[in-house]
Amino acid sequence: MKDKFFSYIQVLQDQITKKLEEIDGEAHFQEDIWERPEGGGGRSRVIENGAVFEKGGVNISAVHGALPQSMQNYFGVEDVDFFACGLSLVLHPKNPMVPTVHANWRYFEMYDQEGHIVDQWFGGGQDLTPYYLFEEDVIHFHRICKRACDLHDPTFYSEFKKKCDSYFWNAHRDEARGVGGLFFDYCRAADQMDLGQWFDFVTEVGNSFLEAYIPIVIKRKNIEYKPAQREWQEIRRGRYVEFNLVHDKGTLFGLKTNGRIESILMSLPPHVQWRYDHHPKKGSEEERLLKILQSPKDWV
Amino acid sequence: MKDKFFSYIQVLQDQITKKLEEIDGEAHFQEDIWERPEGGGGRSRVIENGAVFEKGGVNISAVHGALPQSMQNYFGVEDVDFFACGLSLVLHPKNPMVPTVHANWRYFEMYDQEGHIVDQWFGGGQDLTPYYLFEEDVIHFHRICKRACDLHDPTFYSEFKKKCDSYFWNAHRDEARGVGGLFFDYCRAADQMDLGQWFDFVTEVGNSFLEAYIPIVIKRKNIEYKPAQREWQEIRRGRYVEFNLVHDKGTLFGLKTNGRIESILMSLPPHVQWRYDHHPKKGSEEERLLKILQSPKDWV
Repeated sequence: MKDKFFSYIQVLQDQITKKLEEIDGEAHFQEDIWERPEGGGGRSRVIENGAVFEKGGVNISAVHGALPQSMQNYFGVEDVDFFACGLSLVLHPKNPMVPTVHANWRYFEMYDQEGHIVDQWFGGGQDLTPYYLFEEDVIHFHRICKRACDLHDPTFYSEFKKKCDSYFWNAHRDEARGVGGLFFDYCRAADQMDLGQWFDFVTEVGNSFLEAYIPIVIKRKNIEYKPAQREWQEIRRGRYVEFNLVHDKGTLFGLKTNGRIESILMSLPPHVQWRYDHHPKKGSEEERLLKILQSPKDWV
Repeated sequence: MKDKFFSYIQVLQDQITKKLEEIDGEAHFQEDIWERPEGGGGRSRVIENGAVFEKGGVNISAVHGALPQSMQNYFGVEDVDFFACGLSLVLHPKNPMVPTVHANWRYFEMYDQEGHIVDQWFGGGQDLTPYYLFEEDVIHFHRICKRACDLHDPTFYSEFKKKCDSYFWNAHRDEARGVGGLFFDYCRAADQMDLGQWFDFVTEVGNSFLEAYIPIVIKRKNIEYKPAQREWQEIRRGRYVEFNLVHDKGTLFGLKTNGRIESILMSLPPHVQWRYDHHPKKGSEEERLLKILQSPKDWV
């Protein structure tokens, strides 16, 4: 399974970066191959200063070795080795009318000291972080997510949509990071789904990504915007940084397993602002977004 | 002791904000009084868009109540109440030739369920984060720190300087946040120092702050700088954000005790950049700073 999934994310990385370069029309991904001293490595692809994408990364990695002590404590296990591979992407568009997007699809295995698999599971998801709210875009994104889910289980969309809202909750701000999408984790072989069926589900979601995001980019990338709207985007990007550095388990996992820092932190936006006690004007588009983030709603 | 120290930091906040406004010459501190639902509150003073200070805060707070569960685990105690008060300041100057400064002086008490004090200590320090290295400025800052220490114990400077270097270590970047200063914590009554003597020491350091920092600001605030130097400052500010959100115990304490978010996060810089895999040119001033941050040195 680990070889099968790793092959899948290699091909998916090619498909996604090719499409994104085509949409951007100017910038190209810079590729960095890296090795992890303790085992494994990755292939990072980062785009910067594009016509559409101000900064973004589409990275794959496959790492293995002894599970670090802090992660053993986290999982409540002792003396285990691990293998983890996945694709992580974050795109920060230049135009504040185009939402930031994040996606991740991953597979994890744990072994005892004889090398036998003691646990294995999939995880992942994809979610949208707009700076201005176009409801039809959010509905489109969620519809594609739902379609991918419904092909595998009628309960998945509703379950994984809720998990996404609760995972990407910026608790110290009492607001969501964005308008959600899907989040799932610890998808193990069980009564209704064996591991092969989980593979089919996770790759279904991975294959839906471009269809979920690209039409929104095309629709919004040429809208004119004002300096004040760009400032609002930079202020909101600050909340993105806060979530990723304070709450995000993926970032934490990368830092604790001695992953490549520049690949982990490619998720941080290029230009960011923090203003003291900033509040949007009453009745503004900016305030309308905030209200949605403070009480996540159903979109489909 | 808690009343005595709280009175002290109220007066110190007035002295420091008065002096900073005088140096800035344009902007004034905005004051916000806030209450903590569980007990206590604070007086935040924030300056923005000044001629010298692009963003900064000089905040005092005094909070009390049941110690939150996560903090009880951290301290290894059960069923205790607490009182904590302190002054925290961070100043982000506009000119990249002027260093960012941080200082904090605080006092903590813990009580059993009968209200008896079971533990009490002081903590604090002050440290400098330059974007360009003027060695004479760093030496000046450390000399003032050392003088304040030497008046109380000849071993303090060397001990608290080392603690500062190790506390403000941005572990995931393998570099210091800045060029250090002083850091001390859990300063309890013991053989050589009773609590009153610790009060005298901590207030000595607090009283030394303006003399340690202001001459540097005056010397550097009118130096002309280029857009590329400003960009370097914004990139380095990103490392400041990373430290504060990933490693800083003070920020964590504030978030976990339901402190006022805008007062806690006033420490975040106004304009920040993240570039992928950024490295300064060989032999540049920027690289010279990095080398110092990678292996902290003795300044006095």
